[in-house]
Amino acid sequence: MGTGNAFERDKLIRFHHCDPAGIVFYPQYFILFHELVEDWFNHGLQHNYAELVYRQRLGLPMVRVECDFLSPSKIGEMLTLRLGVRRIGRSSLGLEVEGVAGGVPRVRAALTVVLADVDGLRSVPFPAELRAGIERYLTV
Amino acid sequence: MGTGNAFERDKLIRFHHCDPAGIVFYPQYFILFHELVEDWFNHGLQHNYAELVYRQRLGLPMVRVECDFLSPSKIGEMLTLRLGVRRIGRSSLGLEVEGVAGGVPRVRAALTVVLADVDGLRSVPFPAELRAGIERYLTV
Amino acid sequence: MGTGNAFERDKLIRFHHCDPAGIVFYPQYFILFHELVEDWFNHGLQHNYAELVYRQRLGLPMVRVECDFLSPSKIGEMLTLRLGVRRIGRSSLGLEVEGVAGGVPRVRAALTVVLADVDGLRSVPFPAELRAGIERYLTV
Amino acid sequence: MGTGNAFERDKLIRFHHCDPAGIVFYPQYFILFHELVEDWFNHGLQHNYAELVYRQRLGLPMVRVECDFLSPSKIGEMLTLRLGVRRIGRSSLGLEVEGVAGGVPRVRAALTVVLADVDGLRSVPFPAELRAGIERYLTV
Repeated sequence: MGTGNAFERDKLIRFHHCDPAGIVFYPQYFILFHELVEDWFNHGLQHNYAELVYRQRLGLPMVRVECDFLSPSKIGEMLTLRLGVRRIGRSSLGLEVEGVAGGVPRVRAALTVVLADVDGLRSVPFPAELRAGIERYLTV
Repeated sequence: MGTGNAFERDKLIRFHHCDPAGIVFYPQYFILFHELVEDWFNHGLQHNYAELVYRQRLGLPMVRVECDFLSPSKIGEMLTLRLGVRRIGRSSLGLEVEGVAGGVPRVRAALTVVLADVDGLRSVPFPAELRAGIERYLTV
Repeated sequence: MGTGNAFERDKLIRFHHCDPAGIVFYPQYFILFHELVEDWFNHGLQHNYAELVYRQRLGLPMVRVECDFLSPSKIGEMLTLRLGVRRIGRSSLGLEVEGVAGGVPRVRAALTVVLADVDGLRSVPFPAELRAGIERYLTV
Repeated sequence: MGTGNAFERDKLIRFHHCDPAGIVFYPQYFILFHELVEDWFNHGLQHNYAELVYRQRLGLPMVRVECDFLSPSKIGEMLTLRLGVRRIGRSSLGLEVEGVAGGVPRVRAALTVVLADVDGLRSVPFPAELRAGIERYLTV
């Protein structure tokens, strides 16, 4: 991840994240990434995520995911997730996410989301204020 | 997807796959892909997936995912998932997966998995018989 | 379960249903029960579940669950789920669900759901035609 | 809930807990209850839950659930979950769980779990020290 401002949150690996091999079942990482984006809105961007969905009727559907699973994570480990912004377009947003536990990288992803209205699923340009907040997390 | 032999399964989009916007929550696609791989083992490769896990103590942890979410899927739609093999290495396997509903591509992914023993999480070479079965699904 | 008409579906226990102990993580049974209710609407009641949700804007939120987990289920097992109707009220519905695999009962539940409009979450009386269909599954 | 010592944790209702009706999909409450039990072990009982599973090879499979869903919960709400002990047997444990948000009860459950070894799934008596810790949460 670059040198800019990153948003960071710790996530405990839970029993329900893990599979019969005793490690995180990989789709659960994407659910944790979604929690991270919610936390980023609520605490980093100071833009309540629930109001975005319920009042503004907006969402951030995923358009593209690239993700490397670097080493397995086990129940009870504390995974530190960091989020940065690679790129912000008119209505699309390129995020990078990194997960580290015990000093060891576990997962690294590039996510592309689009701001869209929940009802019609059409893309919507980022409002100026939200854009300004997001730009503070640009990593380059 | 290439011209080779593809494995195909229909998956009904269920209520529990969908989010407050009424469309598939994207991590659920990866769970459906996992179902597809299980179905492929059980019915395409004729190699019981549960025995792979419980008797042979082997698994196929995900190493890398690239996935494009092309258009949203809704509850009640029938998603046709197709799986092909891009590449088979000593113990790694490159898969491509496509999901189409109503003639419209919804999701397209390149997945890299590794054959590994469930207990030590070390990579294991594909047994000859399993490899031969997998090679029948090479798309190139 | 009683002597009436029961709706039945087989569900394969999947990798993603199972926990680090290698058995079904119990909340996953409730997701399977929801699939069963969807299947019952689509194939037993001939009332498309997706249209119920999207066109009629109705749903069946859970009001009460009683469930006994009788013995563990493992990946690869085929779980036969049976659904019967214990009671139908103006807008509430008492269901019983049983899951059996290999001749051994695994799970038994009494579920109470309510027909409600998705937008206001107010209870709605069962339309006559739907009620008539449901009554065919009364177990007593 | 009774007058004894209860263990309490706040859980944010997340996007991924919610269904197309915009409210918590009820199986997700059980996943939140499982998080609560993990938190109770880690912080209330001072008995690391991950070590219970990985080192001691013990788990707490669910035997019986009774749960009332009293009113719906929405994304962004903070759900306060409280856990108390109704009964502790040789190897079984009766828990009660209550979830309240905005002063309104949302969910109330009686859960029966059993201490069992993860490998053989046989019940195991509570070790004296763990039992003593649990008894401090008896609600009667």
